[in-house]
Amino acid sequence: MVAQQTLGAEHMKTFQKRGFPVDQTRRYLEPGPIVLVSSHWQGESNIMTMGWHMMLEYDQIGCYIWDENHSFDLIRKSKQCVINLPTIDLIDTIVGIGNSSGAEIDKFVTFGLTQTASDKVSVPMIKECYANFECRLEDGSMIARRGLFIWRVVKAHVARTPQYPTTVHYRGHGIFMVSGRHINLRRKFKPQNL
Amino acid sequence: MVAQQTLGAEHMKTFQKRGFPVDQTRRYLEPGPIVLVSSHWQGESNIMTMGWHMMLEYDQIGCYIWDENHSFDLIRKSKQCVINLPTIDLIDTIVGIGNSSGAEIDKFVTFGLTQTASDKVSVPMIKECYANFECRLEDGSMIARRGLFIWRVVKAHVARTPQYPTTVHYRGHGIFMVSGRHINLRRKFKPQNL
Repeated sequence: MVAQQTLGAEHMKTFQKRGFPVDQTRRYLEPGPIVLVSSHWQGESNIMTMGWHMMLEYDQIGCYIWDENHSFDLIRKSKQCVINLPTIDLIDTIVGIGNSSGAEIDKFVTFGLTQTASDKVSVPMIKECYANFECRLEDGSMIARRGLFIWRVVKAHVARTPQYPTTVHYRGHGIFMVSGRHINLRRKFKPQNL
Repeated sequence: MVAQQTLGAEHMKTFQKRGFPVDQTRRYLEPGPIVLVSSHWQGESNIMTMGWHMMLEYDQIGCYIWDENHSFDLIRKSKQCVINLPTIDLIDTIVGIGNSSGAEIDKFVTFGLTQTASDKVSVPMIKECYANFECRLEDGSMIARRGLFIWRVVKAHVARTPQYPTTVHYRGHGIFMVSGRHINLRRKFKPQNL
């Protein structure tokens, strides 16, 4: 609750969220946005910035985590995480989280982010994000060899508005692409391919 | 060469491409665009539309391919593919390729796409795409269980201009997000984190 009183939180958006079907997770993650992964293990919470993730089933996500990252052990040991979807207004926070280590600072406090209790995992969600996907480890067989965690989304929370969040997508070298307009080509799809 | 004379090719962009460092592949794929995956096995070529992919190393890519997809066997047997990056001008082609099967049509011919010989794999590249990443299978251990192919990029070709391609990113249900503006936050990064 301390985080709500820090400087950072004052200019952050707040979203009214509702439960969302976990098998529709692709609507927000398939476009490839940068996400903030929150973690918790034995009293310690952390957040990392992540761009290397993909859909593997409609309710499963693969993600790469470098074993030098402070979050790696928290996530590996707890077998849980929350994938939080930030919007463009959090861009400085996204960069700041990626450029600092949970070994040195409490990122929720430093960046003025608010912890919200998850429903199905023991990891805090980030209130200021547009969406939160609570995840449990589905398959850890590729962690040691490739840093690849395979998650099952067990609960999803998505903001009621706007319909499409303005997300940021990383190109490396400090360059971010910001999501643009949307086009609906539904009429050109076979129904079974939608 | 027939493909160049079809209707579709007339309104397509052509790009002047150059070799590009394979360990910089993230600059184009990390933002999460829809890609066109070309394949070839025993005289048959095919193309599929793909949105489920991620960076796993700076020169490695993971991607999910459904085993019911006609491309699945071609790719599994050849252990090769080319990941082609289309731009917004190819949106109807992207949708058309995703809504048809190589079991029934020759997609290069039907969609008026031009095959260009790759340098290091025996799979045709798509000339009309902004970039082409020639890939060899790095790890097939997750194919049977999860449909997950892990590729090493062995040669990359990227257009000289524009600096940033206008890509499309899929949300499911026929909705595409189009890439927008770019922001450079390099000054806010620690050098080792760029």
